[in-house]
Amino acid sequence: MISKSSLYHVVEAMAPLYVAMGLGYASVRFRAFTPEQCAGINHFVALFAMPLLIFRMISSNDPYAMNLRFIAADTIQKAAILAALALWARLSARGSLAWVVTLFSLATLPNTIIMGVPILRGMYGSMSGTLMVQIVVLQFAFWYVLVVFLFEYMAAQRALVAKQQQAAAPAAVVLTVLDGDQQINASAVVPVTEGDGDADTNTEAAMPPPPAEAEAAMAAPSAKLILLMAAKKILKIPSIHASMLGLVWSFIAYREGIKLPTIIDDSVAIISVSATGLATFSVGTFMAQQSRFISCGYSVASLAMAMRFLVGPAVMAASSLAVGLHGDLLHVGIVQAALPLAVISFVYAKEYNVHPEIMSTGVIVGTFASFPITIIYYILLGL
Amino acid sequence: MISKSSLYHVVEAMAPLYVAMGLGYASVRFRAFTPEQCAGINHFVALFAMPLLIFRMISSNDPYAMNLRFIAADTIQKAAILAALALWARLSARGSLAWVVTLFSLATLPNTIIMGVPILRGMYGSMSGTLMVQIVVLQFAFWYVLVVFLFEYMAAQRALVAKQQQAAAPAAVVLTVLDGDQQINASAVVPVTEGDGDADTNTEAAMPPPPAEAEAAMAAPSAKLILLMAAKKILKIPSIHASMLGLVWSFIAYREGIKLPTIIDDSVAIISVSATGLATFSVGTFMAQQSRFISCGYSVASLAMAMRFLVGPAVMAASSLAVGLHGDLLHVGIVQAALPLAVISFVYAKEYNVHPEIMSTGVIVGTFASFPITIIYYILLGL
Repeated sequence: MISKSSLYHVVEAMAPLYVAMGLGYASVRFRAFTPEQCAGINHFVALFAMPLLIFRMISSNDPYAMNLRFIAADTIQKAAILAALALWARLSARGSLAWVVTLFSLATLPNTIIMGVPILRGMYGSMSGTLMVQIVVLQFAFWYVLVVFLFEYMAAQRALVAKQQQAAAPAAVVLTVLDGDQQINASAVVPVTEGDGDADTNTEAAMPPPPAEAEAAMAAPSAKLILLMAAKKILKIPSIHASMLGLVWSFIAYREGIKLPTIIDDSVAIISVSATGLATFSVGTFMAQQSRFISCGYSVASLAMAMRFLVGPAVMAASSLAVGLHGDLLHVGIVQAALPLAVISFVYAKEYNVHPEIMSTGVIVGTFASFPITIIYYILLGL
Repeated sequence: MISKSSLYHVVEAMAPLYVAMGLGYASVRFRAFTPEQCAGINHFVALFAMPLLIFRMISSNDPYAMNLRFIAADTIQKAAILAALALWARLSARGSLAWVVTLFSLATLPNTIIMGVPILRGMYGSMSGTLMVQIVVLQFAFWYVLVVFLFEYMAAQRALVAKQQQAAAPAAVVLTVLDGDQQINASAVVPVTEGDGDADTNTEAAMPPPPAEAEAAMAAPSAKLILLMAAKKILKIPSIHASMLGLVWSFIAYREGIKLPTIIDDSVAIISVSATGLATFSVGTFMAQQSRFISCGYSVASLAMAMRFLVGPAVMAASSLAVGLHGDLLHVGIVQAALPLAVISFVYAKEYNVHPEIMSTGVIVGTFASFPITIIYYILLGL
């Protein structure tokens, strides 16, 4: 049974996140910040604060002392859901790769780093902070890479279809919108580059892909080409760089028994400490900028919420029990799986234009709903 | 004699600040951030991060345990410099109120809160952090209020002159730039409202002063009116609100023996921890956006540096010795007085258009110069 004082402790851990979010929301609603100014803060988070926080977390995590059972449970959960969705897509007429990626992200990719660490620490103490970092390592080293790969695959497929249509009939509409051959080629390969204040947009606009690749894309979206495109895309994501670098450093540091010099650690920390506050503030500004809270219809919104708050945690519970987790470890895994959706999932969905309205709803409604839901999970698991 | 290890400790404390600044500088130079995005970060600092940091610092400072001698030394330094400058302005033909305010800010208003706290703590331990807070209390409760008042006085004087000129000849130029009567009135009273990404600009643009006041300004810049204008201006500065609120709370809390509830303290902290990193990052973006490092001529730049790094610390040393300070307290006072110029001084100078190019130079060159100068002071004082 959870005591009142430990429940208040959890509310204490959650409240600052919602205060920062409320500040962001109010800032936009009361026009204290312009959309471009919000983009500046968001850009700072994506380019510096978040990568440095991820680096600091992962580099200070002992990779030789990871809880293999916990990691196995997390991996089984994600793999099982992905397999089930893939099977459904094959068997059902309504199934598609776009839905597989959307439902997979909804069910398995919560906001572990920003919300998970403080909330779970408030619930189960510092050991859960370490477990969150282990999940973050896998998220950035594997799962987000996979998601980006699948998005790239869909983009390449769509580019092929667009090329074929363009070859069949002169695409006057496309030509009026775009200017110059290079632009058209670029848009054929990466048709979804929107100026959405995202970290990579600038770099990408500055570097149209070389003609050789564009022609290859016209031919067919070969697995090799897609892999190449995905790799290029992934190498532009600062958080992925940071997690790789942190992982490599942690393997060296914990084998050799060395630490980052204080001067470097403090220089990283001066920026990384801003990540949690700025990221949640940024979620608030994001919410306030959306025209509607639920932009995808109520039935789809319900499906999204069910995937996030029921399917994800339920499969996590099953996989945790399957590998023999119990007690706090089991509880940490389940509550972690019931955190609100990661904002980065929306960012990708929007960038690749794959169900962005569902992901927006997932983030907004999920973040509001998670306050009571996380606490209910905590209470139920403590019975 | 300062040991090598304690010297390295100081470099350790200073390096992160310069790293964050360098990141800001590089972000603008490599076009990773647009000027408007930088304004967003700066605005976040001015509106939330800085005020909350100031509130947190001041509210957790025991006002009944202030070091009165230290405060007296700081107050005498500022008052003596102001008196000397006022005397010079009266006696010299080249003297003016604008120069008094500029030289006073240069000599007595260093970047205590952002650079002072970490650097002095690195040098003299945590007791110096407490002393910095005491200086910050006075800065925001009195000295910045005085500076804003003097700026308002000058603005009112200039408005009067402009009005008289306007009455003498139809001001066609003014009318083509501005639109509508209200705008002209507003510009007559506060002629310096530039859209410079500053915290108050939006609010101000949204609230033109009531006509009655505008007419009063046309008559003459009476002391009462100026006081009113200054008060209105000051009440729009979030950092001043925050320091007042923090001061009031600290008087209550330390008398009653109560503390802020953790849930409130953590909610403030989630944003306030970002202040140091974001503010120094913002200084870096500010530097990169200036067309020239030294925008006011070498002789004036030398004067500015002399005021900041020689006159300020020398007068502080004299006033400290006069009130009987010695040892670490004396050293803390002197090093504090030799910190780089506060960015807020530039913000006001630009907003009121009173020697902004000198203040810009003061911040940029001063920040670079302070790295060796602060260390030299530290070494000399340790001999």
